[in-house]
Amino acid sequence: MSNGDIFIGEVIGTGILILFGAGVCAAVTLKHSKARASGWIVIAFGWGFAVLAGAYTAAPLSGGHLNPAVTIGIAVDTGKWDKVWVYLLGQMVGAMLGAVLAYLVYLAQFNANVSSSVKSADAVDEDGPTPTLGIFSTIPEIRNPVANLLTEIIATIGLVLPILAFGLTKGLGESGTQVLIVALLVVGIGLSLGGPTGYAINPARDLGPRIVHQFLPIPNKGTSDWGYALVPVVGPLIGGALAGLIYNVAF
Amino acid sequence: MSNGDIFIGEVIGTGILILFGAGVCAAVTLKHSKARASGWIVIAFGWGFAVLAGAYTAAPLSGGHLNPAVTIGIAVDTGKWDKVWVYLLGQMVGAMLGAVLAYLVYLAQFNANVSSSVKSADAVDEDGPTPTLGIFSTIPEIRNPVANLLTEIIATIGLVLPILAFGLTKGLGESGTQVLIVALLVVGIGLSLGGPTGYAINPARDLGPRIVHQFLPIPNKGTSDWGYALVPVVGPLIGGALAGLIYNVAF
Amino acid sequence: MSNGDIFIGEVIGTGILILFGAGVCAAVTLKHSKARASGWIVIAFGWGFAVLAGAYTAAPLSGGHLNPAVTIGIAVDTGKWDKVWVYLLGQMVGAMLGAVLAYLVYLAQFNANVSSSVKSADAVDEDGPTPTLGIFSTIPEIRNPVANLLTEIIATIGLVLPILAFGLTKGLGESGTQVLIVALLVVGIGLSLGGPTGYAINPARDLGPRIVHQFLPIPNKGTSDWGYALVPVVGPLIGGALAGLIYNVAF
Amino acid sequence: MSNGDIFIGEVIGTGILILFGAGVCAAVTLKHSKARASGWIVIAFGWGFAVLAGAYTAAPLSGGHLNPAVTIGIAVDTGKWDKVWVYLLGQMVGAMLGAVLAYLVYLAQFNANVSSSVKSADAVDEDGPTPTLGIFSTIPEIRNPVANLLTEIIATIGLVLPILAFGLTKGLGESGTQVLIVALLVVGIGLSLGGPTGYAINPARDLGPRIVHQFLPIPNKGTSDWGYALVPVVGPLIGGALAGLIYNVAF
Repeated sequence: MSNGDIFIGEVIGTGILILFGAGVCAAVTLKHSKARASGWIVIAFGWGFAVLAGAYTAAPLSGGHLNPAVTIGIAVDTGKWDKVWVYLLGQMVGAMLGAVLAYLVYLAQFNANVSSSVKSADAVDEDGPTPTLGIFSTIPEIRNPVANLLTEIIATIGLVLPILAFGLTKGLGESGTQVLIVALLVVGIGLSLGGPTGYAINPARDLGPRIVHQFLPIPNKGTSDWGYALVPVVGPLIGGALAGLIYNVAF
Repeated sequence: MSNGDIFIGEVIGTGILILFGAGVCAAVTLKHSKARASGWIVIAFGWGFAVLAGAYTAAPLSGGHLNPAVTIGIAVDTGKWDKVWVYLLGQMVGAMLGAVLAYLVYLAQFNANVSSSVKSADAVDEDGPTPTLGIFSTIPEIRNPVANLLTEIIATIGLVLPILAFGLTKGLGESGTQVLIVALLVVGIGLSLGGPTGYAINPARDLGPRIVHQFLPIPNKGTSDWGYALVPVVGPLIGGALAGLIYNVAF
Repeated sequence: MSNGDIFIGEVIGTGILILFGAGVCAAVTLKHSKARASGWIVIAFGWGFAVLAGAYTAAPLSGGHLNPAVTIGIAVDTGKWDKVWVYLLGQMVGAMLGAVLAYLVYLAQFNANVSSSVKSADAVDEDGPTPTLGIFSTIPEIRNPVANLLTEIIATIGLVLPILAFGLTKGLGESGTQVLIVALLVVGIGLSLGGPTGYAINPARDLGPRIVHQFLPIPNKGTSDWGYALVPVVGPLIGGALAGLIYNVAF
Repeated sequence: MSNGDIFIGEVIGTGILILFGAGVCAAVTLKHSKARASGWIVIAFGWGFAVLAGAYTAAPLSGGHLNPAVTIGIAVDTGKWDKVWVYLLGQMVGAMLGAVLAYLVYLAQFNANVSSSVKSADAVDEDGPTPTLGIFSTIPEIRNPVANLLTEIIATIGLVLPILAFGLTKGLGESGTQVLIVALLVVGIGLSLGGPTGYAINPARDLGPRIVHQFLPIPNKGTSDWGYALVPVVGPLIGGALAGLIYNVAF
């Protein structure tokens, strides 16, 4: 694969990943969405099929990593680091692009996120505006950097180790079953390990949209919470590297 | 594939798609349905498996497009336009047939959709009749043609680009895995991108059943809302064409 | 396949189908079940994966029809009727066996289904006993034999036509993907077309457990409702035959 | 496969199984979890995809049994017992490891499981601490050893018989479809047969985490309920052996 193909594949694939992933968070969070308050099962399947859509599209170009933790895990295992920067660059650009696209899909919903004092005659806005960072990036339920980091590290091992053991390293497969299984693995991580921190398990998935959230003109968007931003970047990177190490030793 | 096979395949396949798709909307919406008020997860999986059933059936005859946006996307990419009219005709006829079949499956439920003033002794009808257009066609949560169009365009790109990148163009695959992955992709689009407009992402899926709704003898059926009808036709067509263009350039 | 293999395959496969299928209805319906009141999504996926488990097991012996409507549909299409009686016999015996097994799995729950007047001190039984027929057989939401028959006919076409078009006739496939797709098709039928009648779509699935319900010593079990029993037998048989006809003509 | 590979495969695979499985129970049970009270559908899919993640990872090393009932079932069928002790040892070590990892993922949540009298000013803790054994091991809804044993035996047959009939004995398959189908089979068992006892269907899955629960320093953790511990060990072992016998005779 050429650097150009890798870059374009990761931009498009990670863009679709975040379009769908931030999309499902918007769907469940925002007022005036048909999926409002539809629960954790929707969030977890939404992010899983976000991986399906993104990896399915990117696979022919770049193999569809879409996640620096996966790229690092493979590099630690194989010892090949020369293409890593292309993957990471594509992933960050794609994640930011995807966040903008999700914002555009829910444009009318974001613009309706006004304070009840402004539109006091509108009954559905009586609760005031909704904080919007959780649509773009992760927020821990209990803020405890050590525990949050531990959660992200273990959850990322739970993602990258199975992928290494049977997944991406064997290629996509002629009928795409690998992509499907990785997508359902991500559903499983959401259901099982997402409770404490909202499962970043992917530095680009968290940092890219957080940057975009900082700049988007969303009414009453609330904080971009840069004080937490390091945990969902560092935790998944450590987890991915550890998974590469475990795989290299055990298999 | 002969024109006859394509036409019959798209009629049967799109018919099954809308039978299941309008069916799940009836299941969740109508009183006296066992699935009443079972939520967005049911809607999204229902439409996804509607694609599974329809495309699975149509695949041997027509390849199973079932969607003018998919047909246009492939035509823009490949430059072959001569069969497009056969696909579109089959899709429109099939969508209308499917809407009638869904109506027949829920016949007793539709006939029980009477005003509370007529059957005032019946406690379950105390809320009055249910508007029925949402069972057949899409209705935006916030009516804003520009934003609604943008939502449909981006959501349709999210459907057609992955299909082009790895899906239908490689054929069904010996064991049907492609159809399964496209079906789950549609579940994902519903979960993630369906919140603002109810995700037409398919002009035939919206226009065919809207025409049928106009003529069906449903008690208290409410408006067929022709003022919105253009958005879910034009948006997906633009989205499909853009997906074909992006694919042609990037891959 | 020998008659003996077909019979044993259909007994075991249909037995597992009804064990899981009646099981999920018990899980959602009965007091003192961890899955109590968990909704339609659980019912629909439960029955779909019941097909997965049963067909997956029966496939090497009998091809895994598990349903007289499927057997009839294949016979109408192929014109081969000599093995049909073996399939049907195995399916009926298996369905009755499976209903007894589901009863045994939920034995303590069924035995706790006592009237509140008997155990008035127990707060969880304050609503009185639960009717139990719906765990074993289908009950329409609106009792209207013509409409109910129509629902069952169309829903069964929606099952058997896709199976004929791409499924069982091509065998199980080397990796079992066919079984998976048929299982998800059944999830889809439940989500989309199950609202009016509870989707028998299989005469053995409804009649076998209804006979067992008649004889099981369940406290306060309520009626076995023989007045409705013909609809979920005749409707699916008509639907299966029609699907065979449509397939034979159109494909 | 060497004893070393089998042991490491089963440790890692069962470790991931319980990390995800105990994880989803923690996610649904514990206060301050984003998935709190998200229902039975989350539990059942969570455990199913736990099998996906664990078996997917272990498959290249040990074939991915992850369950003494599966190992015993295969041994009863094939008559080969010499590797059984390696599998069982790996499964028990892995189950204990996985329980510790799940505890670490939800560390902040477990540490916040304090009595309301201790933190009376915190509104979210007003209900008092949550019993925690159900996160690690199974608890029957109605305590009746005979009925509970019967439930576990039949549910385990429902797991092991399909696996024997088409699954693990034929190996993983080139694209991992077998693992996916077994995972969805486990989702089905949870949905359908999990209501009475919480479906151990795996002695290691219940006993390993129960031992860990006994020793973990969780505030207000409640009883480890050793009086019930025999049922979810003996029941699945009987069920696995019976499945091996049925398979050996019928197929």
